[in-house]
Amino acid sequence: MRALATAPAARGLEDDAAVLEIGNETLVITHDTIVEGVHVRESDDLADVAWKLIAVNLSDLAAKGAEPLGVLVSHMLGDGDERFVTGLDDVLESYDVSLLGGDTISAAGRRAWGCTAIGRATSSPVPDRRGARSRDAIYVTGPLGAAMLGFEGVGEFERAYLRPKPLLNEGIELAPQVSAMMDISDGLLLDANRMARTSGMTFALESARIPVVDKARFEDCIRWGDDYQLLFTAAPETALPTAATRIGSVLDEGPAPILLDGSPPAANRPLGYQH
Amino acid sequence: MRALATAPAARGLEDDAAVLEIGNETLVITHDTIVEGVHVRESDDLADVAWKLIAVNLSDLAAKGAEPLGVLVSHMLGDGDERFVTGLDDVLESYDVSLLGGDTISAAGRRAWGCTAIGRATSSPVPDRRGARSRDAIYVTGPLGAAMLGFEGVGEFERAYLRPKPLLNEGIELAPQVSAMMDISDGLLLDANRMARTSGMTFALESARIPVVDKARFEDCIRWGDDYQLLFTAAPETALPTAATRIGSVLDEGPAPILLDGSPPAANRPLGYQH
Repeated sequence: MRALATAPAARGLEDDAAVLEIGNETLVITHDTIVEGVHVRESDDLADVAWKLIAVNLSDLAAKGAEPLGVLVSHMLGDGDERFVTGLDDVLESYDVSLLGGDTISAAGRRAWGCTAIGRATSSPVPDRRGARSRDAIYVTGPLGAAMLGFEGVGEFERAYLRPKPLLNEGIELAPQVSAMMDISDGLLLDANRMARTSGMTFALESARIPVVDKARFEDCIRWGDDYQLLFTAAPETALPTAATRIGSVLDEGPAPILLDGSPPAANRPLGYQH
Repeated sequence: MRALATAPAARGLEDDAAVLEIGNETLVITHDTIVEGVHVRESDDLADVAWKLIAVNLSDLAAKGAEPLGVLVSHMLGDGDERFVTGLDDVLESYDVSLLGGDTISAAGRRAWGCTAIGRATSSPVPDRRGARSRDAIYVTGPLGAAMLGFEGVGEFERAYLRPKPLLNEGIELAPQVSAMMDISDGLLLDANRMARTSGMTFALESARIPVVDKARFEDCIRWGDDYQLLFTAAPETALPTAATRIGSVLDEGPAPILLDGSPPAANRPLGYQH
């Protein structure tokens, strides 16, 4: 985000998705690129790479409560192209999404893949990360750290890392009820920090309430990304349409964007995964 | 195109743009990636790279007669980021296009940039490359080879290579009149070959009619890409709303997709630029 955010035209880049009114419809459009050695390992099966490429974009749609209309895919040709196509077919079938188009490129060196996902908003206003209000409750849809353990080779969590599930139905159900929503791609602390800053609030998180897959690794679980759970805020009396865990409360803007058990997180450690 | 076209889901990838009906509107969506050392030179000013990235996508919209609604940009961070932002601002201002969003990536190695452009169709049906009909006339909007000379360092043509102009107004004016249309990104012969094949026709081109910037380099000019002129077909009696040169006629499908002065182009030389 750093470089482009200096351009006046680039303000939109601060969110994960663009919202575009056209006729009577509201479109949600996201673009994400994944790079070999950065977002996926060079040894990863390209079927899993294709899955992740699409899933992370669908997850951005989920956070907007948008129903996918289709995706465009940009693919760098090389070894494993057939596996890429297999994974692409898998994920598109699993979420009933159309491949609308894209391009392929022959180029040497480190590979990169891009995806644009287009969805139709199902709720107005479309949720974003700016809307958290004082005294709202803060929720996550599920436990954090599964992708981390999968990355580290813990068998039962491998698929959580390789084949993340975009929470499309949950996002659509939640969208009318939330004051702010985003998917957790870069770690709970970092993404909560972003939501708090953009909303001009302080998020008070309670560590005992935050669901993690491995309590002994709590500090890692709340910093590791790739889980694609939804983080959202809602008025405390809201009856939620989908399972979620309350992890804290929104306060008026205080000395730090986030407080964990009353204190800002330790400054000597990154809040999450910065691309 | 090769790898993805093997997947049933990937059929849409054979065109440069996807067409999506939503509500009462028809959207046109394109995605193109440009890669350092492949589509742009490593020495190129990143302001020109940004211009070209956006321009080639807007050119795909132009070929559909679509009015741009906005773009999403994927940018790999590195040297020259400020120049990239400058070029991005230039091209977006020149064509009055909004930056809707995108992402930035930090990664070592060869850089790549992606753009998704979204437009609103102005004409129905939306032109594509499949519609050429027997006895239609074949046209191009302007001379070919300017980008080639610019690439080779001929001063007056440098901007044609570095800062191609998407023919948005021409595309919108032509869209209601054409039977098929596409932009020439990979060379006249190759793109005409594609249009002829997709239409199930033979395109008979007359070399004396084809406008080129350097007659002594005719064979190169009709194979070099990057000019982004529009190639289109229309019934011969059509009154064209914009300047264009007739370069041949559509015939029923014959022994080869294209004929140049009555013969298939020499088989020992590529028709154009294959990515």
